[in-house]
Amino acid sequence: MSAREQLTGAMAELLWERGYAATSPRDVMARAGVGQGSMYHHFSGKHELAVEALSAVIGDATGEVSLLEGEGSPLERMKRYLSLPRPGTQGCRVGRMTQDPQVVTDAELITIVASAFDTMLGRWEQTIAEAVEAGELPASIRPADLARTLAAVIQGGYVLARAKGEQGPMDAAIRGALSLLDAAHSAVDADH
Amino acid sequence: MSAREQLTGAMAELLWERGYAATSPRDVMARAGVGQGSMYHHFSGKHELAVEALSAVIGDATGEVSLLEGEGSPLERMKRYLSLPRPGTQGCRVGRMTQDPQVVTDAELITIVASAFDTMLGRWEQTIAEAVEAGELPASIRPADLARTLAAVIQGGYVLARAKGEQGPMDAAIRGALSLLDAAHSAVDADH
Repeated sequence: MSAREQLTGAMAELLWERGYAATSPRDVMARAGVGQGSMYHHFSGKHELAVEALSAVIGDATGEVSLLEGEGSPLERMKRYLSLPRPGTQGCRVGRMTQDPQVVTDAELITIVASAFDTMLGRWEQTIAEAVEAGELPASIRPADLARTLAAVIQGGYVLARAKGEQGPMDAAIRGALSLLDAAHSAVDADH
Repeated sequence: MSAREQLTGAMAELLWERGYAATSPRDVMARAGVGQGSMYHHFSGKHELAVEALSAVIGDATGEVSLLEGEGSPLERMKRYLSLPRPGTQGCRVGRMTQDPQVVTDAELITIVASAFDTMLGRWEQTIAEAVEAGELPASIRPADLARTLAAVIQGGYVLARAKGEQGPMDAAIRGALSLLDAAHSAVDADH
């Protein structure tokens, strides 16, 4: 790995472990094993480091949203994506950033986070619209709303799992969402 | 207000604005307008201050969960509680704490947060069980799961709203949950 990659990786770890405010450029250099000359050759400071680290984390996280496309009916794909293993107590590396007071008030950092959520919500919305179109979900479901509901179940599942220090609440939140989707699906069948 | 209350209030504000790591006892004294002698007369340090501040915040937050009890059918009460105004971009003062790395690793602080969530989830679970019992929701719904799903929608709604800096995603997440509950309700009617 290059010094630049080592610094970015160290910043991503420290953002995650300690948050933005509690991470100093000195901490990042120590974690990366990179000296001050190299650090300030690559980055003007903590802000620029955070921009690059956050972008890298988000690139990894948004990859899995592609599971909303591919094989299976729209409702099957929605359920498959909801059912992905998610280590709840670790939390979501992207969602966490919205709870970091220094990240939310930094226009550039929060824009990176917002745009990652927009990509993910766009995929959700499209897949839900397909499910309604295919008669798998009732026409009363608004795709833009349900996209945010289901994304919120995942993000909130992390919050509940971290509050308890257990995986259970995340899995339960997902099971409950799947059972509501199944019930909504059977409401369509009933209308037919 | 007593010096003790001023210190607790200042700690609650700073926990919220900056997080635990970025808040020093000196910051709390400055915000409270209280001197060092008084501060260390009341509190051994930052940890003890945080315990008391967090307990006060949680007392305020858990009060509104009582809306799950009271007038109306169980499903009406669930929908009423979901529809409470929630300033999404401010975030949840309790949920936020689960994303603070220093709070999660502090056994005493995270226990206070976990117990607040337990109280809230217990009320949800009981109300959902009543809705299933009353035939307002299908028997396939497990109250312990759906309790976590609906609590997650609220917590995740805050995450999405903060990511965008807008109220919209919170309101959309709630509307989507209400439409799923309505669809699940009509699935019961269909079975009858």
